Amino acid sequence: MNWDTQFAHRTAQMKRSTVREILKLTSQPDMISFAGGLPAPELFPVDRIREATDTVLHERGREALQYSTTEGMAELRGWIAERMSASGKLNVSPDNILILSGSQQALDLCARVLLDEGDRVIVENPTYVGMLQAWKPYMPDFTAIPTDENGMIIEALEPVLAAEPDAFKLLYSIPSFQNPQGTTMSANRRAHLGRLLAHYGLPMYEDDPYGDLVFEGEKMPTVLELEAEARGSRDIDGSVMYAGTFSKTLTPGLRVGWVAAALPVIDKLVQVKQATDLHTSTLSQFITYELLRDPQMLETHVATLRRVYRERRDLMLATLEEAFPEGVTWTRPTGGLFLMVTLPEGMDAVQVLQEAVKQKVAFVPGDGFYVGPEGTGANTFRLNYSNARPERIVEGIRRLGSVLKEMMAAKA
Amino acid sequence: MNWDTQFAHRTAQMKRSTVREILKLTSQPDMISFAGGLPAPELFPVDRIREATDTVLHERGREALQYSTTEGMAELRGWIAERMSASGKLNVSPDNILILSGSQQALDLCARVLLDEGDRVIVENPTYVGMLQAWKPYMPDFTAIPTDENGMIIEALEPVLAAEPDAFKLLYSIPSFQNPQGTTMSANRRAHLGRLLAHYGLPMYEDDPYGDLVFEGEKMPTVLELEAEARGSRDIDGSVMYAGTFSKTLTPGLRVGWVAAALPVIDKLVQVKQATDLHTSTLSQFITYELLRDPQMLETHVATLRRVYRERRDLMLATLEEAFPEGVTWTRPTGGLFLMVTLPEGMDAVQVLQEAVKQKVAFVPGDGFYVGPEGTGANTFRLNYSNARPERIVEGIRRLGSVLKEMMAAKA
Repeated sequence: MNWDTQFAHRTAQMKRSTVREILKLTSQPDMISFAGGLPAPELFPVDRIREATDTVLHERGREALQYSTTEGMAELRGWIAERMSASGKLNVSPDNILILSGSQQALDLCARVLLDEGDRVIVENPTYVGMLQAWKPYMPDFTAIPTDENGMIIEALEPVLAAEPDAFKLLYSIPSFQNPQGTTMSANRRAHLGRLLAHYGLPMYEDDPYGDLVFEGEKMPTVLELEAEARGSRDIDGSVMYAGTFSKTLTPGLRVGWVAAALPVIDKLVQVKQATDLHTSTLSQFITYELLRDPQMLETHVATLRRVYRERRDLMLATLEEAFPEGVTWTRPTGGLFLMVTLPEGMDAVQVLQEAVKQKVAFVPGDGFYVGPEGTGANTFRLNYSNARPERIVEGIRRLGSVLKEMMAAKA
Repeated sequence: MNWDTQFAHRTAQMKRSTVREILKLTSQPDMISFAGGLPAPELFPVDRIREATDTVLHERGREALQYSTTEGMAELRGWIAERMSASGKLNVSPDNILILSGSQQALDLCARVLLDEGDRVIVENPTYVGMLQAWKPYMPDFTAIPTDENGMIIEALEPVLAAEPDAFKLLYSIPSFQNPQGTTMSANRRAHLGRLLAHYGLPMYEDDPYGDLVFEGEKMPTVLELEAEARGSRDIDGSVMYAGTFSKTLTPGLRVGWVAAALPVIDKLVQVKQATDLHTSTLSQFITYELLRDPQMLETHVATLRRVYRERRDLMLATLEEAFPEGVTWTRPTGGLFLMVTLPEGMDAVQVLQEAVKQKVAFVPGDGFYVGPEGTGANTFRLNYSNARPERIVEGIRRLGSVLKEMMAAKA
């Protein structure tokens, strides 16, 4: 059976990356990996989840193990709607919420209901590689807007929209603690973006997995809120689809996320989700809701995450300062899980990874996160600081510093 | 924001059905519903699952709550491979297995990697409505092969393939206890189909959610096994993709299914699944494996399901015999969850449903399961017997009989 001739054309957009193969090595226990985007498992509220699961199975076992609606558990949708309304800027109805099998699913479903081949999509550069992976099979045409330490440069977006007001189908952004850079769109730019979206009626996908993991100051308003404000509305009836998740604030293994959007969008997404996986794990939804019912649980737990991840970020930044050679720069995130390193022009992060892995340190090269000609972002890589213990952060960054110094010396 | 102009062309293939709206009424507690495809929740091994979950969270909590690989939990893949090899007809490797978020996901992912617009797909008529819903957005061209009490009429398939040997991309069938009819493809036809697939190198999607729920005799060999046999192979390297699930044998709320296929297919499916939902709930997989580790658990539980569902089928068949008017016929399943009723030509099951719902009884009209011109199968409907308690089966079928008698009398 020759399967190669059987696959659909869209599969040509999917390729197994060489990086993925290198990163398989990171499961070795002596490897110090900054590669994944994993939360710290030692902080998982395991005992609290055990207790919650026992309660759920004791009190509502049959219901928690049965098929359920595609839309998701009513109480959980209600909880999310209430929380999203808490800032006073929005009146979110449970009908605006669709529960998903993790927020990656929102990427897939939204692309499915919105993107035809050739549709033009605006992204920030670099952007989330998992979005590119999910959307490329739909063969959209990406337009990249550059970023700086304050996120997508909205001043550069404005003329693009003005020149071709009806040209674009969708804009994608992670405004808060972006993956891969860890940077955040400033308050001014968010408001500006909200006004542009409202003015042009341009749909936006606001991806917000990290928004709660703030290290300094207050959580910023979402673009969802600001687009509504620009229209003088408090309802989710505009052009922003907002994707959230409990993977970073509770645990990823339950696979529970959500999308909040205008009712016509939710209606279409429900139809697609039903054909895709019927519904999200009933038990996972019941456990999640049982945890959230305790009004202290999430706040206390997120406070711990913020404190520990901030310490790890501080330690990584300090060690980078100490161990990395001159000419190498990096972002300084104020929340989230990642920072991004830029090597001198002409260096190749994949080559660095090959050397680093020999020294038992791993990271993700940056080129996969970039839209643009082959080689764009080849001198960048992403580091995760949430998943490694402090002593391993220090050790790993020092080893990486030595690798870089050696490679740069050999080149000079 | 006018969303209607924004949606992708493929969404035109998706429509919210009026039947779905009627069936929303079935959640009323006094409604006797034969509509869903739900297992009997009173048989769920809730205490055993509570225990298994507690063990998992106690012993491997951090791992069970963390992100995991797209392929799925190694032990669970190993267990499935071993079980699929148990008949001695196949050597299934864990690498042939991909764990899914329920087996509905196999439909979506396989379509995604195989179907281009206009690709020709062979199905049995009637066929699973959830497959039609999942595949229609890929705009394939369906060719329907008729069925009788022994499943898809392979004698009718043979000349179709002979006439156009390279015309078809894929064949879809539920050989065992088909949804909606409950009928089963005979052993001879399975072997015949296996030979045809091997001869033409035609890919098949074998959907097998109900195969374990045998009421009489032994479980039949799968087409996966018989296609391999026709090629003189014991490896999964042929043209059949086999989809299985724990939704019917354990509980659906965990959302754990799998697909078994040749390695190049698994490779592509893994790439698509990663973009779709990263991976299946880690906790659900760990709980499932913890249950299956007990060698008695599944066998004992499935034996109970077989006994109880057989009793319910018997009761439904006996009550149909007693309560339904002459001129109405139905299938006699030897396993699974469903049977299908055929009304006299010219009657419309949607109209019957409207009357039945007034009498607090519900079912699913059959036309949605049929491929063909508008109105095909309009005089059929599906009844589920696994989910209703015995006294409600009797009461519901009697009420339905009265509705039918009245409607038929009014017509005469």
